[in-house]
Amino acid sequence: MNPLDPAGIFISFEGGDGVGKSTQSRLLGEWLREVTGRVVVWTREPGGTDLGRVLRQEVLHGDDMDPRTEALLYAADRAHHVATVVRPALERGDVVITDRYLDSSVAYQAGGRSLAADEVERLSLWAVEDLLPHLTILLDLDPTVGAARLTDAPDRLERAGDEFHLRTRQAFLDRSAQDPARWLVLDASGTQEDIHDAIRAAVVTRLGDALGVADGASLGEREVG
Amino acid sequence: MNPLDPAGIFISFEGGDGVGKSTQSRLLGEWLREVTGRVVVWTREPGGTDLGRVLRQEVLHGDDMDPRTEALLYAADRAHHVATVVRPALERGDVVITDRYLDSSVAYQAGGRSLAADEVERLSLWAVEDLLPHLTILLDLDPTVGAARLTDAPDRLERAGDEFHLRTRQAFLDRSAQDPARWLVLDASGTQEDIHDAIRAAVVTRLGDALGVADGASLGEREVG
Repeated sequence: MNPLDPAGIFISFEGGDGVGKSTQSRLLGEWLREVTGRVVVWTREPGGTDLGRVLRQEVLHGDDMDPRTEALLYAADRAHHVATVVRPALERGDVVITDRYLDSSVAYQAGGRSLAADEVERLSLWAVEDLLPHLTILLDLDPTVGAARLTDAPDRLERAGDEFHLRTRQAFLDRSAQDPARWLVLDASGTQEDIHDAIRAAVVTRLGDALGVADGASLGEREVG
Repeated sequence: MNPLDPAGIFISFEGGDGVGKSTQSRLLGEWLREVTGRVVVWTREPGGTDLGRVLRQEVLHGDDMDPRTEALLYAADRAHHVATVVRPALERGDVVITDRYLDSSVAYQAGGRSLAADEVERLSLWAVEDLLPHLTILLDLDPTVGAARLTDAPDRLERAGDEFHLRTRQAFLDRSAQDPARWLVLDASGTQEDIHDAIRAAVVTRLGDALGVADGASLGEREVG
């Protein structure tokens, strides 16, 4: 699936704001560290590197910018993140879990704004030399429910309006339907524990061999938890 | 020549460090303001906007970065610069003179580093929606002479080594040869005044009709100076 076929495992979480990506990606990371003994690198986009934090600040809290500038800043953040964090970890054989990756760019920028999806996707794939996750977990939720869960002051994207977030949600769903082998779509309206269980079960089914995790690990864990 | 065919005139200066782009572009701007009465917008890349100054700092003085990250940051700077400064000025009918534009990216990044020229060019053209200058003036100079003229502490690109700068010079020359209608190549080893005179003469010949400047303006100016 990946051109460089690295030894590690690469998992991304996607979805709107407030759906639980941060919580669920950390829970999955802790569980995988425990059951596989592998190093788990938990990271995020934008802002997974020092440069990325500068760019994240500009994109989310800076002046308004045209869609191409925004797309290029996200792509620069992603290129640096992959070159300095993700790819080195995969080459060491680590598990890398990222809160957002290139599908967010395609969904937010092409679904929500004015650029063509294939242009945004081509830009991101060029930035990362075609590195795609082994598994992408979409936490799907009605955007009005997600927005109500947020407690911090909204950033520029979060303020962009209901219609924008509805189009973005649909773009994620459309995108996942085009590549079901890579995507897992979960209803994110359930409890934190139920969603974590569903994620673990899917990871065992899809990546159990690569991770050296058998069905029992998942089931045993579920009975204990 | 330009897809949007704006009312203004767009001129870029290119070449290595220390060849006199900053001085010559300002002299040309002052002269054009005087003889045409038009508003002249003098600007530069990277760093022609607030966002651009943040990006310029990261690219030139930040940590080492992979070539794709660097290319994307330059492209983001350029997209924002064109969207917020260059294109609005051209639509108003102003003269825009920029110290570096997309040819610098192609020459420095593809000529000097590891990316393919057509990839870097495609990225930049996408960033600016295909906006090219009416005239690009290449100030050509042996890089060792240019380096000796610099007085500030060298930045990351300036420190990159003689071979890098020789490849970059050659990339500029190759690129100019492919599109002589857009490019003017000048030997930058002459005096400041001789180079300015040559630039004025070429601008009158190539853009005199569009600017409303006849041959006499250039000649009269030259006799007075």
